[in-house]
Amino acid sequence: MGLTIWSNHELRAGEGAWLARALAEAGHRLVMSAGATRLVLQGGGSDSALAGADVVLGQPAPEDVLAAPGVRWIEISTAGYARYDRPEFRAAMQARGTVVTNSSAVFANPCAEHVLAGMLAVGRELPKYVRNQAGPREWGYLEGRYSADTLTGKTVVLLGFGAIGRRLAELLAPFRCRVIAVRRSPRGDEGVEVVAEARLAEALAAADHVVNLLPDASGTRGYCDAARFAAMKRGVHFHNIGRGSTVRADDLLAALRSGQVGSAWLDALDPEPLPPDDPLWRAPNCHITPHVGGGHRDQDLNLARHFVDNLRRFERGEPLVDRVM
Amino acid sequence: MGLTIWSNHELRAGEGAWLARALAEAGHRLVMSAGATRLVLQGGGSDSALAGADVVLGQPAPEDVLAAPGVRWIEISTAGYARYDRPEFRAAMQARGTVVTNSSAVFANPCAEHVLAGMLAVGRELPKYVRNQAGPREWGYLEGRYSADTLTGKTVVLLGFGAIGRRLAELLAPFRCRVIAVRRSPRGDEGVEVVAEARLAEALAAADHVVNLLPDASGTRGYCDAARFAAMKRGVHFHNIGRGSTVRADDLLAALRSGQVGSAWLDALDPEPLPPDDPLWRAPNCHITPHVGGGHRDQDLNLARHFVDNLRRFERGEPLVDRVM
Repeated sequence: MGLTIWSNHELRAGEGAWLARALAEAGHRLVMSAGATRLVLQGGGSDSALAGADVVLGQPAPEDVLAAPGVRWIEISTAGYARYDRPEFRAAMQARGTVVTNSSAVFANPCAEHVLAGMLAVGRELPKYVRNQAGPREWGYLEGRYSADTLTGKTVVLLGFGAIGRRLAELLAPFRCRVIAVRRSPRGDEGVEVVAEARLAEALAAADHVVNLLPDASGTRGYCDAARFAAMKRGVHFHNIGRGSTVRADDLLAALRSGQVGSAWLDALDPEPLPPDDPLWRAPNCHITPHVGGGHRDQDLNLARHFVDNLRRFERGEPLVDRVM
Repeated sequence: MGLTIWSNHELRAGEGAWLARALAEAGHRLVMSAGATRLVLQGGGSDSALAGADVVLGQPAPEDVLAAPGVRWIEISTAGYARYDRPEFRAAMQARGTVVTNSSAVFANPCAEHVLAGMLAVGRELPKYVRNQAGPREWGYLEGRYSADTLTGKTVVLLGFGAIGRRLAELLAPFRCRVIAVRRSPRGDEGVEVVAEARLAEALAAADHVVNLLPDASGTRGYCDAARFAAMKRGVHFHNIGRGSTVRADDLLAALRSGQVGSAWLDALDPEPLPPDDPLWRAPNCHITPHVGGGHRDQDLNLARHFVDNLRRFERGEPLVDRVM
């Protein structure tokens, strides 16, 4: 029997048409919300059309989902799902047997590549050379050779460990890095050294690179603060591919200015867009990208495929990929 | 019995002292040339003190070595050794049983990391964001997500295959790239797909990234020319970590300007230093680093260790690491 699939996630035209065709061929009905948008980080508004849906794709208003008992599966079109990750929402979904998935498999690899790009760029000093090329065009051969560094053998601490951390650990394997993941509840299947919060200070002190992967949640807001920056090795490289809210920007700014943090690579800021006059833009060795870590040119195709693959599993009653509730 | 070791490779003070101490403790005599320098790419001048040496470390004048029959082993302090790679020099060394090693193990990993840094930086568009930060500080979120790319699954063609290529292939393994090495004489032990020159055009047409690793030699000068750039896929990313002389700069410039080459990452130029008014500095999507690919802060320590390790092998009559003649 055909399903009614409501979505407020606007794909690019080609990929949107591909998805619509795939759903029609499988006998389903796609209802695109009038408020559909690509700006997934802001969340969609309320839409009465969701009420009749069996399946939801995108960024639905949580209250719409709570008011629509017919919805049996929700696929969130991002990796982050803080908007839904609340006790009352979880409880309601569990009570009525609604499954919630996110799309973290789509974004994990680009995010991991993005972090690795920063790790290598800081060692090979690429920003310095980009600026040199726009400016004096000097040939800093000898000093450049001795100030360059390599990633091989370094210690990398991951704050949080999910799909991105797992992929990053894979990419780091040939570098023979010591990878330490800090996780509230170590499970034992991580494939890297895992420590609980109690040993956080020790891990931070050992790190050449600290990678913040934390999602936005009540327990993670402002997690990377002055005390934690102070616990790191002087000159540490700090990468934020988590959420902007998990880093205290003023504390990071002070740590960059004092040299305690040797460089920062920030893809997630608070607020976004970061205003052009925000002091982080001009902080020493601070490198900012506009939340593009998870992006890539095949993003929409991969998102559509992720949903269609999960839909096939849903039809067959199989476990869904990237289930979060 | 103690050996007389002549060197014209100037290490930094700490590492130089470490090496001198290590050699003295082993009962050897270190003779530092009056013309010792760190500028290894230029080669050292003639030095009569070399005549009495058993072992040579650095960048000796080839005629000094030819005139010193007592020299039994020469360790070149770079990866490149074009200065010595001539038929008459090879023949003379072979005739008298002199072993020649280079230091490629010291430089292979930094070079491979340098190339990978460029490959990831172009996908994640880091130069654009460095310039944005120095300039308008815009928040190009949506367009940035769709213009970003990933390295995973791409096709990488290596022109030449030695220590750097081997290490780069290791680093690329988790990206599941198709790696094709073009080599005059495929050996079968490369661990990657290897094709001979006859299939070069086919390989170039398949490549998303082409990495030039060729040394300077009569057969490689101007190897990357208009015809070979034209054989590549439009928009290819071209990396030069080989020697500057192996690329025709005018042809590369034209290919960058037409968009045939989508980006260039050049760490080796011809001439070096590249004059500040050279048009490559301003060519579209051309990124220049001043021959720092092999460098890193532990370079001198690693060079000294490489020599001391080889010296132990030499004393025991064991095969030397990085033997090239």
